[in-house]
Amino acid sequence: MSLDKTDSIFKVAVDAMGGDFAPRNEILGAIQALKESPGFELILVGDKEKILSVAEEENIKLDEKIIYHATDIIDMHDKPIAAIKSKPNSSLVIGAQLVKDKKADAFVSAGNTGAVAAVSTLLMGRLANVERPTIGSYFPSRNNSTFVFDVGAFVDVKPHHLFGYAVLAKIFVQELYNVPNPSIGLLSVGEEEEKGNKLVKDTAALLRETDLNFIGNIEGRDILDGKCNIVLCDGFVGNIILKFGESVPSFMKYLLKQHSETSLLEKIKIGLFKNTLKKALSPLNPDLYGGVPLLGINGISIIGHGSSSPVAIKNMILRAKEMNEKKLLKKFEEALKNYAEKK
Amino acid sequence: MSLDKTDSIFKVAVDAMGGDFAPRNEILGAIQALKESPGFELILVGDKEKILSVAEEENIKLDEKIIYHATDIIDMHDKPIAAIKSKPNSSLVIGAQLVKDKKADAFVSAGNTGAVAAVSTLLMGRLANVERPTIGSYFPSRNNSTFVFDVGAFVDVKPHHLFGYAVLAKIFVQELYNVPNPSIGLLSVGEEEEKGNKLVKDTAALLRETDLNFIGNIEGRDILDGKCNIVLCDGFVGNIILKFGESVPSFMKYLLKQHSETSLLEKIKIGLFKNTLKKALSPLNPDLYGGVPLLGINGISIIGHGSSSPVAIKNMILRAKEMNEKKLLKKFEEALKNYAEKK
Repeated sequence: MSLDKTDSIFKVAVDAMGGDFAPRNEILGAIQALKESPGFELILVGDKEKILSVAEEENIKLDEKIIYHATDIIDMHDKPIAAIKSKPNSSLVIGAQLVKDKKADAFVSAGNTGAVAAVSTLLMGRLANVERPTIGSYFPSRNNSTFVFDVGAFVDVKPHHLFGYAVLAKIFVQELYNVPNPSIGLLSVGEEEEKGNKLVKDTAALLRETDLNFIGNIEGRDILDGKCNIVLCDGFVGNIILKFGESVPSFMKYLLKQHSETSLLEKIKIGLFKNTLKKALSPLNPDLYGGVPLLGINGISIIGHGSSSPVAIKNMILRAKEMNEKKLLKKFEEALKNYAEKK
Repeated sequence: MSLDKTDSIFKVAVDAMGGDFAPRNEILGAIQALKESPGFELILVGDKEKILSVAEEENIKLDEKIIYHATDIIDMHDKPIAAIKSKPNSSLVIGAQLVKDKKADAFVSAGNTGAVAAVSTLLMGRLANVERPTIGSYFPSRNNSTFVFDVGAFVDVKPHHLFGYAVLAKIFVQELYNVPNPSIGLLSVGEEEEKGNKLVKDTAALLRETDLNFIGNIEGRDILDGKCNIVLCDGFVGNIILKFGESVPSFMKYLLKQHSETSLLEKIKIGLFKNTLKKALSPLNPDLYGGVPLLGINGISIIGHGSSSPVAIKNMILRAKEMNEKKLLKKFEEALKNYAEKK
């Protein structure tokens, strides 16, 4: 495939080899996105033969021209930064490179999170006034719009990094989720100012000096309670909370299964209730939100869970499209410049 | 009341004014403990008049002699260390003092966690070879014996502190939960050795050199999965995870309630299923485990949740009794000495 960005149509490069169920879920998700929201150009980056063979299995007529052949795959065992050198012909590196070369407007991948973040950052570069890019994640909550930043881009951070995350997250949540002036809480071990580690105390001091809607420290319980829209923490804490949270539904299932074995009646009751429970707990389904964008880089890069379903992939593509339509990169730059000048 | 430790009967001082429902839950729980497992002496520390009046309301005949009058109460707004000076006549300070003076063998309180920890540590002192005491918490999990240490005693810790927690936790889980050679995981953002912050990497190096059953790094999802018995982390991360976890059941209830409003049929279904769900999710009930001991101090001090129910209070008292019967303090000292000598 040869690509030229001669027209203004939005082009999204999808890492067809990224997830645990690649390329099947990637192909299915991308095709769904095209059906649901046409008007963009799809580029499937990956092993041409495999992509075509899976498409055939799924009875999808795929125009060969939308495939950008990549011979290699970066997997979960590859070290993020080394991968760019050791596997230059991987779908992940080529996909990010397409954005760098302006042959695509966005990159979507359900591959190794660390590698997608590192490769996207290295190839696309950072926006002005960004020292550290950040990955945020949607959390189900009572306010339906709670996001935790950071969930794993970097584990050793400084107060000014967290401040930068806050600025990016504010624009992201405001523009994409229509929350005016989103509230920002700093994750700590108590609400009182004196509670927390040094990072929390120093970051709070920075945040208080700005016009950001900073509500102070929040506690672990306040995330699901939806006490604020943006929960700020370092990537170490955020990643642990995210993975803990993701393990809750399967633990619930386990407890229900254990209990169903206590009596036949309970087993029947649980069987009858299964669908209702599934529907009630559907807000916990991460597929609805698809992946999360890597914020602070000079391009659009959406990172999905390894186990991303077709729906998740579809939503990641639509999210990328929306970020482009709403000119988020430009808005990030303006906000960052604005806060940098005020310092 | 005048106390003398002239006989060998186990004496437990209960902070009758500590919890959110004090002194009611404290009295009810203590009386239940006496009924269920007699053979110990109860000391209720708190406002004599209030205690007697609540006992009367509950139709409990309370021997006035078991009340140790305390005029003051340390609440959630008191600063932990300042409280010892500003409120020397509080039930919390007097209760811990009784253990220091060997007039009681253990102290149980559902009061301000930070204050119970600080006052107990200051008054009872630390065991030899302990630099930092630690508070652990039981977590429901697939292995039924997962404990997270630390959940909030200290937020800025060093690798040798985490190592000390591991030694204390090992003895605690081994002796009180009959888990031979409990497995220990270090909470991080990936299983690989190179994943994590500096604290994780340096602590892993320390743990690998010992005969502790260290299984390496674990991730957030591995807690509920029960991948190990002891999850090691600093008090900042542990406290956030604990409070996040505690908020899960009420969030589930909220989601069920939201869903029940979508149709009458769903509402009825949820109503019919309520009891089954409650039973199935009963392992999530923190009351079963009552409070958590502060480990590493030269005495027995059990700290409960502010909202502790009578059952929780009862279990805290029984836990204190078991720690005494199993001579845990002596076993802690031996283990700590053992590891200190090997260094």
